Amino acid sequence: MAHRVINFAPGPATLPLAALEEAQRDLVDYRGTGISIVEHSHRGKDYEAVHAETKALLTSLLGIPDDYEILFMQGGARGQFAILPMNLLPAGASADYVITGTWSEKAIEEALIVGRAREAASTYVDGRYTRVPSRDELDLDAGAAYAHITTNNTIFGTQFFDYPDTGSVPLVADMSSDIAWRPLDVSRFGLIYAGAQKNLGVAGITLVIVRKDLVERGRKDIPHIFQYRTLAKEDSLQNTIPTFAVYMMRNVLRWVKEQGGLDAMEARNRRKAEALYGAVDEASEFYRCPVERGSRSVMNAVFRLPSEALEAKFVAEAKAREMVGLKGHRSAGGVRVSMYNAMEPTGVEQLVAFMREFAKANG
Amino acid sequence: MAHRVINFAPGPATLPLAALEEAQRDLVDYRGTGISIVEHSHRGKDYEAVHAETKALLTSLLGIPDDYEILFMQGGARGQFAILPMNLLPAGASADYVITGTWSEKAIEEALIVGRAREAASTYVDGRYTRVPSRDELDLDAGAAYAHITTNNTIFGTQFFDYPDTGSVPLVADMSSDIAWRPLDVSRFGLIYAGAQKNLGVAGITLVIVRKDLVERGRKDIPHIFQYRTLAKEDSLQNTIPTFAVYMMRNVLRWVKEQGGLDAMEARNRRKAEALYGAVDEASEFYRCPVERGSRSVMNAVFRLPSEALEAKFVAEAKAREMVGLKGHRSAGGVRVSMYNAMEPTGVEQLVAFMREFAKANG
Repeated sequence: MAHRVINFAPGPATLPLAALEEAQRDLVDYRGTGISIVEHSHRGKDYEAVHAETKALLTSLLGIPDDYEILFMQGGARGQFAILPMNLLPAGASADYVITGTWSEKAIEEALIVGRAREAASTYVDGRYTRVPSRDELDLDAGAAYAHITTNNTIFGTQFFDYPDTGSVPLVADMSSDIAWRPLDVSRFGLIYAGAQKNLGVAGITLVIVRKDLVERGRKDIPHIFQYRTLAKEDSLQNTIPTFAVYMMRNVLRWVKEQGGLDAMEARNRRKAEALYGAVDEASEFYRCPVERGSRSVMNAVFRLPSEALEAKFVAEAKAREMVGLKGHRSAGGVRVSMYNAMEPTGVEQLVAFMREFAKANG
Repeated sequence: MAHRVINFAPGPATLPLAALEEAQRDLVDYRGTGISIVEHSHRGKDYEAVHAETKALLTSLLGIPDDYEILFMQGGARGQFAILPMNLLPAGASADYVITGTWSEKAIEEALIVGRAREAASTYVDGRYTRVPSRDELDLDAGAAYAHITTNNTIFGTQFFDYPDTGSVPLVADMSSDIAWRPLDVSRFGLIYAGAQKNLGVAGITLVIVRKDLVERGRKDIPHIFQYRTLAKEDSLQNTIPTFAVYMMRNVLRWVKEQGGLDAMEARNRRKAEALYGAVDEASEFYRCPVERGSRSVMNAVFRLPSEALEAKFVAEAKAREMVGLKGHRSAGGVRVSMYNAMEPTGVEQLVAFMREFAKANG
């Protein structure tokens, strides 16, 4: 039995043990082929089967309609901050961005290098973000090329539960840190993108789900490698794809399916979040969550202790009990508990027991 | 003992068994941390040590001078076909491209979307390339922003052994399929790039070695994520790096070092190539290498048999003897033998023995 700690890191993050053990078996001799999964050609039948299975699992688990393309790209969400406007922001047009944290700030920053963009809302107050905006706070441009949101904000611990209604303007979502946390109505979005390293696998692959008419509408005066149409046409195999990263996504999605799919993920994630925020609220004189209730992220819970010294002590004592990755982001401070799909509910229960004990001993 | 075949595929390609076995050990519990190497944070000390060791190994093995940056990017060589001119081809300037095969054709195609570019030479004749140009065939523009070559051509089996002298014009080289095949004088180049999946590891990471003054000179009106300066400033950690791909590069480079470094690689590679081309030439009535002698690639040897039917039979019989990946590229036909650094000389010896036998039985 391998030694494993409880890893609450924000990403790269903990993965299902079954997905890792499967990769371990396939790393020298993949299914009796005498070739490692990482040595197999991206144009050979063994990898092709992995590629097709990954797309089929995404289609069935996320309910991706026929009029959408599934693309595997490189460069992470940060790459999409640039590639999205390069494709879908024609000269003269403008895009709307809803600003809810560091990632949306960076997304609009790249868009402004490529073309015109405006803030449709921002919840920035006093150096931080403590909520996502409500629908009636949005100042949407009815003529925008697209409207962009970040569905979950890893640093400030906020999350959208009710997505904006942008009418005929395509809604674009960076779901890097919460894709597949619950069932999704893909048809409400023009484009969804997500780096894989939280809910989908390892760093090095970016999932893009995009409506076919937007692919066709995309600009043709940008390098081919960045045109969504190139990837759509070549099934993301226009050049050597990061085969291992797709393979790991396949392993993770198999695990999601075995657990019961996205309904099961939602139940599991809500149970973890309720336990965690419950522990914060029941000791509200000691733990303080800066996020408004309706915006509290189910993926990344952030909270403060009475002092930074106590926060450091909390993180150190948790680590001594093999619960790691709890230090808040350097720009937000405090404690951050990342509880992506793969985090076991028992891991959160163990943390909650420690939180009670720590508050009692230090409160 | 794991079952392993002899894999002559052009990339993803065979890797050193030691590098794979090490990864296998680290895939569930990395060095007693209780966390997989793929789950470790890209900002944690465990990954940081891997990152630093990989750069140190590159620096010592390739002899990278102090005035060069080592960057880890995503998107493969195809990504660099676009990112290179986006950075280093200012408006109004022109870049030179030496065209020696499919990859340089695609490189200039992307450059022409970004700005101005011209062919400084092309060895295209009758639908194919059978050599690289000599120095005196090059029509170089003394005012070019840079001059670009593809040092090894995987499809047509040609390779540069004598690099062009471009004077004060920065020489840029796509070394995706032959980097580290022998010792290198980095100072002759302004920029070198290489997808990792042949001589350096797995698909999903692109090594860029670039002179610092070129980084500084790069355009600032392109998205930050594509600016070489962003990666130089952030040590390639501006966003989540494909940690596993860097880790695998580390494992492969450790193996190169243990073998004796690039001098040992060159001796090993020349020995394999001599054996292979020797077998072709000694049966010249049966096997025919279309590549001129001085341009024959040490990495990818291509040859034809008297008929396509015999070529198919050759590939099938070799496969039955557990020698795989020998089918030529669809655009070139014939047989292709990829013999990157990790291919064991005994693998080539076994193939050579089969080639003799096959020629005798079918000639």
